Amino acid sequence: MKPKKRVLSGMRPTGPLHLGNLLGALSNWVRMQEEYDCFFFIADWHALTSDYEKPDSIKGYIREMMIDWLSVGLTPEKSTLFVQSDIKETAELSLLLSMITPVPWLERNPTYKDQIAQLANKDLSTFGFLGYPVLQAADIIMYKANGVPVGVDQVPHVEITREIARRFNYLYTNVFPEPDAILTETPKILGLDRRKMSKSYNNAIYLSDSPDAISEKVGQMITDPQRARRSDPGDPDVCNVFSFHKLYTDPQTVTEIDAQCRSAEIGCVECKKIMARNLVEALAPIREKRAFYVDRPDLVEQIISEGGHRARQVAELTMKEVRAAIKI
Amino acid sequence: MKPKKRVLSGMRPTGPLHLGNLLGALSNWVRMQEEYDCFFFIADWHALTSDYEKPDSIKGYIREMMIDWLSVGLTPEKSTLFVQSDIKETAELSLLLSMITPVPWLERNPTYKDQIAQLANKDLSTFGFLGYPVLQAADIIMYKANGVPVGVDQVPHVEITREIARRFNYLYTNVFPEPDAILTETPKILGLDRRKMSKSYNNAIYLSDSPDAISEKVGQMITDPQRARRSDPGDPDVCNVFSFHKLYTDPQTVTEIDAQCRSAEIGCVECKKIMARNLVEALAPIREKRAFYVDRPDLVEQIISEGGHRARQVAELTMKEVRAAIKI
Repeated sequence: MKPKKRVLSGMRPTGPLHLGNLLGALSNWVRMQEEYDCFFFIADWHALTSDYEKPDSIKGYIREMMIDWLSVGLTPEKSTLFVQSDIKETAELSLLLSMITPVPWLERNPTYKDQIAQLANKDLSTFGFLGYPVLQAADIIMYKANGVPVGVDQVPHVEITREIARRFNYLYTNVFPEPDAILTETPKILGLDRRKMSKSYNNAIYLSDSPDAISEKVGQMITDPQRARRSDPGDPDVCNVFSFHKLYTDPQTVTEIDAQCRSAEIGCVECKKIMARNLVEALAPIREKRAFYVDRPDLVEQIISEGGHRARQVAELTMKEVRAAIKI
Repeated sequence: MKPKKRVLSGMRPTGPLHLGNLLGALSNWVRMQEEYDCFFFIADWHALTSDYEKPDSIKGYIREMMIDWLSVGLTPEKSTLFVQSDIKETAELSLLLSMITPVPWLERNPTYKDQIAQLANKDLSTFGFLGYPVLQAADIIMYKANGVPVGVDQVPHVEITREIARRFNYLYTNVFPEPDAILTETPKILGLDRRKMSKSYNNAIYLSDSPDAISEKVGQMITDPQRARRSDPGDPDVCNVFSFHKLYTDPQTVTEIDAQCRSAEIGCVECKKIMARNLVEALAPIREKRAFYVDRPDLVEQIISEGGHRARQVAELTMKEVRAAIKI
């Protein structure tokens, strides 16, 4: 039997997870567990690159994130789930990789200037923020990952990781595989206000939201902006609520709603109620598992600790090879 | 009794130590052992910032450097002597400090562009080289050093360390003292060719040189360039050999040689012979101790290992404070 390929990915603990995270990454990770040897980590050091001035909430979010992960179906029985800062070896590898990484590789990174522009209210011109891709490369190649499931915007980072791995192998010894970016088609949903769903926009439906909170948020969702009155026909193709229907409502009903919307037979209020009911129901298993883990903080701590232990065993072996290769 | 103030300094293991290192730093360190709680480290990670392409010799130089240190009178009985890369905590602290260090602080560092210019044959535009002062700050504040004995050219680095420590204390909690640069008057001697004594100029007298090698090298030394013939009077004030006399020959003889040179009573060959004899004699205790440690590699390894153990105990305590301060 061929050994499973290894994939690795991480998330920054900067807030509770929402439907955008679930559909954009987590559902994909859960599926990958069946096919790959998965390493998933909570990137608390990465969170510092943007939140170094207010790190107070990072620690709390770590536990919340692990609970979210376990609730959606990530499981230590199949994957290594750990916290980045528990693996001190990553700091050492990042330092060693920094010695061989040209500054221009980092400056030309397209997401670097994008992020500085997007988060203009934060002072991001730090050495750590510039070096984000170096730390990320250390995270990835430490476990000799073959693939990295990422969104399109992260592809340049994986490319830098490949270049750094290649340079290390060239300068010293062939230690690291070059990981591939694994792109996955993800259903597109928007936040309540039709912008990208994001904690910072305050437009998200969270995995931890109660059924009442979900119903209320769905009630606030902006539908087809051209449909001003109940009697106006609507266009499901531009309606965010309809995008949710396609994910959470049975196909027969979706077809009916499509027609009823276009003919103004159904109004947005009623349409949202159907969607909210289906969404609440679809998230029920997640809510149940969430409640289970929320009640068992010790178990969550134990899962975090054991994941760290497993990751560290791999990291220690890699660092032995790395130090031998550099002869340091 | 007031606790001793702590000082810390390091040297890069890029080659055997020479008289320039002894007079410029080591003699000073040996004296400091009496007054301060001293931490001295062999900066192998720092050596990678410039020698990452050919790190093969770093490991060998580490042991040679420790032998040189022990030979001149540094001792584990008085000081903590250790190797930088043995303290993995430093990589973690460096990573955390990188998050709060603005890139412009590093770019404006006067030694940054100087070194890039000086070592034009090496590709130094790496992220690690740019971040040298961050790693150095981690080295220093990890041990909460109050002072750092440095040469004038290193003062800007200590200033960056102070700024980084101040910023950490301001953003989180007051953990780190701001270290002072300790400048010491050092006697000025030059290499055989009257340039700065340096391994790269191939003009150095090494602590490990045999008496014959020392005599031969002194014989090659450039004296007063204006004194072309034996019968020409010389000018001791511009003669490098005379600078050595002032350090290694008794004051009475120095006065005599000064006069005899100016009146051409003594020639350079004879003058050098006197100096070489005195230099060889002055270095005899160092050579003896060197031979002792060269014969005892296990003892040297043990000293390195115990120094690392002592340094790590301090580093672990500091990192507990640091993680608590950042709440990560």
